Amino acid sequence: MTVLEEFVNTFSRLPGIGRKTAQRLAYHFLQVEQSVANNFADQIHRLRASTIHCNHCGCYSESEECPFCNDPNRDRTQLCVVAWPQDAANIEASHAYRGLYHVLSGVIAPLDGVGPEDLYLDLLEERIKTENIQEVILATNLSPEGDATALYIQRLLNNYPITISRIASGLPVGSELEYADQQTLSRSLKGRILLSSRGS
Amino acid sequence: MTVLEEFVNTFSRLPGIGRKTAQRLAYHFLQVEQSVANNFADQIHRLRASTIHCNHCGCYSESEECPFCNDPNRDRTQLCVVAWPQDAANIEASHAYRGLYHVLSGVIAPLDGVGPEDLYLDLLEERIKTENIQEVILATNLSPEGDATALYIQRLLNNYPITISRIASGLPVGSELEYADQQTLSRSLKGRILLSSRGS
Repeated sequence: MTVLEEFVNTFSRLPGIGRKTAQRLAYHFLQVEQSVANNFADQIHRLRASTIHCNHCGCYSESEECPFCNDPNRDRTQLCVVAWPQDAANIEASHAYRGLYHVLSGVIAPLDGVGPEDLYLDLLEERIKTENIQEVILATNLSPEGDATALYIQRLLNNYPITISRIASGLPVGSELEYADQQTLSRSLKGRILLSSRGS
Repeated sequence: MTVLEEFVNTFSRLPGIGRKTAQRLAYHFLQVEQSVANNFADQIHRLRASTIHCNHCGCYSESEECPFCNDPNRDRTQLCVVAWPQDAANIEASHAYRGLYHVLSGVIAPLDGVGPEDLYLDLLEERIKTENIQEVILATNLSPEGDATALYIQRLLNNYPITISRIASGLPVGSELEYADQQTLSRSLKGRILLSSRGS
């Protein structure tokens, strides 16, 4: 196997990158200036060297306390529970949330051998006890594992004097009823939002 | 800008990689073992360090003479002229060609400031003079620049006792007439292949 073939094999294992893209990457790295190619390699090293998990919430950070936990302007009564740090980053990009985060570092998935004890649930409970949190928003994936994890946390936190909510499931913005799957439609109906009520 | 944002900015400039894929890459590199992440960086370095251009034809190679030039079983009377080394690799993957290659390292593109003198045309003419080449297949892109380059080479080599051919232009395999663009249809008709002839 040539070094080029080895490169393509390695890079085509990355998420979102097929063999064709890996080949284009190889040819790109061969065609640019040496320093540009080196910069890509260096960025991988730097990313690993400088990015750590926030001690407190588990989000990615360059210091021991992340920008979310460190920001005095955020709403410290809301706690959004996510499976992975990138989920927090994605929610943040929506600009729809200004509270704190808590990263579980996974979801309960018996088939993959991941149980509740593998997630940062102790830390979550500790935060509920010691911080001034009034609402926990369960923002795990809308998948069987994500739903099961949300249900588990809901039961775990049931006895605390807090509101527990789950992100809404329904039709994505811009989607058409005709092409919606039945489970999504069913959830979209169950979770319908009251606009006005004649009876009240 | 955080290191993570810088990583995403850098990697989203790569061909075939958008911001979303660059983000997924960053999170992937943060989640895998340190040694796995390092391996990707090393592969970029190794690719650059070990891959050179063949002295003779310009294809990518790990030694001064590439596997094509070095292979005694290839047809040394046919020479396929391509713009870039990856074009040769792509033709090779089709298994439809067993001759030699010649890489121009670009095409004539006045708008980008690339003229005939920037391509390996001297070397091409030298090969026609010194090697036993009987057919030159012009396999530059079917684009205005690729066509212009093919035409230029056709004129350049016109006085040599060799056959000059151009790869066929027409409808891609599996395509439908209904959706074909008019230029492709027109070329497909002009380049039609005779199946049987009543008159002959």
